[in-house]
Amino acid sequence: MTDPPALAALRERLAVLDGLHGALRLLSWDQSTFMPAGGAAARGEQAAAVERVAHEKLTDPEIARLAGELAPWADGQDPDGDEARLLATVRRDHEKAVRVPAALAADMARASALGQQAWLEAKEAGDFARFRGALERHVELAHRYAACFPEAAHPYDAMLDNYEPGLTVAELRPLLGNLAARLAPLVAATADGPDPGPLAEPVDVDVQRAALLAVLTQMGWDDANWRLDPSPHPFCSSPGIGDYRLTTRYSRQDFDFAFYSTLHEYGHGLYEAGIAPALAGTPLHSAVGLGVHESQSRLWENVVGRGRPFLRWLLPRLRELGIPLAAAGVETAYRDVNAVRPSLIRVDADETTYNLHIVVRFEVELALLEGKLAAAEVPGAFDAGMSRLLGVEPPGVAEGALQDIHWGLGALGYFPTYTLGNLMAAQIWESARAGLPGLDEDLEAGRFGSLREWLRETVHRHGRKFPPRELLRRVTGGELSSEPFLAYLEDKLADAGVMPAKA
Amino acid sequence: MTDPPALAALRERLAVLDGLHGALRLLSWDQSTFMPAGGAAARGEQAAAVERVAHEKLTDPEIARLAGELAPWADGQDPDGDEARLLATVRRDHEKAVRVPAALAADMARASALGQQAWLEAKEAGDFARFRGALERHVELAHRYAACFPEAAHPYDAMLDNYEPGLTVAELRPLLGNLAARLAPLVAATADGPDPGPLAEPVDVDVQRAALLAVLTQMGWDDANWRLDPSPHPFCSSPGIGDYRLTTRYSRQDFDFAFYSTLHEYGHGLYEAGIAPALAGTPLHSAVGLGVHESQSRLWENVVGRGRPFLRWLLPRLRELGIPLAAAGVETAYRDVNAVRPSLIRVDADETTYNLHIVVRFEVELALLEGKLAAAEVPGAFDAGMSRLLGVEPPGVAEGALQDIHWGLGALGYFPTYTLGNLMAAQIWESARAGLPGLDEDLEAGRFGSLREWLRETVHRHGRKFPPRELLRRVTGGELSSEPFLAYLEDKLADAGVMPAKA
Repeated sequence: MTDPPALAALRERLAVLDGLHGALRLLSWDQSTFMPAGGAAARGEQAAAVERVAHEKLTDPEIARLAGELAPWADGQDPDGDEARLLATVRRDHEKAVRVPAALAADMARASALGQQAWLEAKEAGDFARFRGALERHVELAHRYAACFPEAAHPYDAMLDNYEPGLTVAELRPLLGNLAARLAPLVAATADGPDPGPLAEPVDVDVQRAALLAVLTQMGWDDANWRLDPSPHPFCSSPGIGDYRLTTRYSRQDFDFAFYSTLHEYGHGLYEAGIAPALAGTPLHSAVGLGVHESQSRLWENVVGRGRPFLRWLLPRLRELGIPLAAAGVETAYRDVNAVRPSLIRVDADETTYNLHIVVRFEVELALLEGKLAAAEVPGAFDAGMSRLLGVEPPGVAEGALQDIHWGLGALGYFPTYTLGNLMAAQIWESARAGLPGLDEDLEAGRFGSLREWLRETVHRHGRKFPPRELLRRVTGGELSSEPFLAYLEDKLADAGVMPAKA
Repeated sequence: MTDPPALAALRERLAVLDGLHGALRLLSWDQSTFMPAGGAAARGEQAAAVERVAHEKLTDPEIARLAGELAPWADGQDPDGDEARLLATVRRDHEKAVRVPAALAADMARASALGQQAWLEAKEAGDFARFRGALERHVELAHRYAACFPEAAHPYDAMLDNYEPGLTVAELRPLLGNLAARLAPLVAATADGPDPGPLAEPVDVDVQRAALLAVLTQMGWDDANWRLDPSPHPFCSSPGIGDYRLTTRYSRQDFDFAFYSTLHEYGHGLYEAGIAPALAGTPLHSAVGLGVHESQSRLWENVVGRGRPFLRWLLPRLRELGIPLAAAGVETAYRDVNAVRPSLIRVDADETTYNLHIVVRFEVELALLEGKLAAAEVPGAFDAGMSRLLGVEPPGVAEGALQDIHWGLGALGYFPTYTLGNLMAAQIWESARAGLPGLDEDLEAGRFGSLREWLRETVHRHGRKFPPRELLRRVTGGELSSEPFLAYLEDKLADAGVMPAKA
């Protein structure tokens, strides 16, 4: 049976849209890596132009007409098949986009490019005032955006839905509140623990980069499809199929950061690379949400990367690669890389306190959008939150409210997905262990293919075919929960000797 | 007096178009520098998508309607003013684009991206067969493109007009034929001259790069707006205002290549950077044609860079920068960098034989488009042309028909503009010398601002405001001619001792 002609016509339109989105990703990647600073204004115009035509293409009434024409046909298809899910996704994307005027979408793209540059300059100067205008603009645009979805219970929900489809402040607030409450005793029980040492002594950046590439190659990386570049904030981007780009930040003093952030971004990249080629050129060939995305990065960074089996393989390999290890042996390293130590910088934070950094940001974002906080008050509110939840006080905005790029981009609602990722990673890990009985042995032997392919088969290949929670149910059989994460964390902290074993 | 509303509406549309073109330039730059090879297919789709929507935007009937509505108003404006010229250019671009179906424009963009990759792989493998299909596709597309302009006397004219607006095969064939005939005795008179030595001995690539940046900085380069990256084929691209990117190819053995190719690309970059900001966001903010573009690169590379005053400044500076010079002194270097030596590679060719490389390519392109040559026969025809005009025989396709990227991109009609650039550079140089009496002294003292600003003022700032030959008349008072180039070349070759002084 051949596809109906309307499906071919729809697919042609979706392929153009997909190409435009790829171009947008490259514009953004380039701005964060190699673009000369002087190009920022023009980049804003370029991003706005492509965003604008992409928005026009997505909101074209012909999309709705074709999808409508195909509806009776789709009713006869497998409801879990690619075609039925594609049509549902296209209809949802279209209906959501028609709510947003093209000029607003272009304004947001332009503000994102300009805000990124303002953030960089303000951070470098340690001067929040240089960023305040950009943040005010982002908040204003977020409200104009939220106004397009008047049925939402909270102005934050419209932004959140772009990062974590379907999630709301009403669900998120108790989830994060409860998690913070449960983490508090864990942090208290470990704060007097041994001072964490680094994995490695200071070492030349060139040696770090070569070692990273050697480790990644063992994990499936190849030069024909991947890049690793420096950037102020580590990230992963895939401009298109077969093109996966990671960045990290190097410092002679801190191999640990480059190593674990690269492992993290590689987990993101594997997700992108694992989406089924059959979905190419359609909106299904994309991550389903940032929570699931983050679950893949955190799984490789923390669950695998800070686990004993992986460290048993890693440490001798790093030594061969010229990395001067600091830890005396695997058990010391295992304890050190899992040490709990409240600190200033989110991306440097340990697995336990990390989520408290997220709670601080979530509270600031909510207050901003609820009008309880002015942009100029953000540094103060941020610092107060850090002090209250983590007991640390940022010495300046570069280590405080400006430490992350997200607000520069105007990505309000993004941060909570990091914590969702931690929770989902623990849930998916439980399923992986059940599905792969020899997993520990594989990791200890440097065989990463079994886990990678299991994740590709159960998570990656579906792309956006199943909404996040449906995907999670398919993989784990359960609902989103913080219990597996807390249990995993408590077990590991006890096992590694970071805190006393449970009674 | 305020602008009419239709002009603002038109400008808004032109700004979107300008942003899309900037995105296309970045997609192409990235593909030639940092894109993993595996991303080529997706990049083809991205380029095709952006090209397609740009074509839709340019051919939108609303453009013609707005331009038509503005025609009476424009008649009352200064005919040499920005507005009148903008409207004339918009109307020309629109009328030209409506001739070309959107699907054909997208096919050409896609074929360009795919052909670039095929060219790279075929060149690396030394196997023309891997590129044949891509070239056949380019020829087929060129014919489909030419068919959109049935009034053209030759199928080549339609492609040529994209690179050198207004020029035709009927004019180009005698111009190049005459030039080749005049160059033959020059080459014969110098072929027994002293063996040219390199400017510098082998030196580490890092040292080369640092020296290049130091020299460029003296010439006006700054990190806030410029980049210099490695790529297989040197080129210059400006994704947008404030963002100028050069590439070169390094080899320990060949500082000369990196140096002069970078000087060449910097000349291109200065042209892009010199276009008046007032023209931003319109089609006037662009080079007027590749001949004028090339005149700027060849002027800095050859006329300045291989001239005695510049060498007097350069050589001590290079020595300070750690470049081990090969030449005993300025006079030896002056003779060596102007030596005439028929050779295989166009981008390595001396200033005298260079144009014969172009003639070989022009003949092959004409024969391809006239159906007198099949794609598979290109290597043979290329080698025969090299043997006939230059007396050299490529040992393989990598040094023969596949040495340049242009045919990979499908850029048939591009090569002749290099020779146009040589001719125009000599004409513009005559005017610069007349306008800047202290020019030699400036160059000898490392003061490059006077020439740079003179070029900006007379050539660069106009962008596409005046068609190429009108611009040339405005700058030089004369018509396109090969006589100033031949006179300049004969004088320099005699002055440098490469050939006997004229009687």
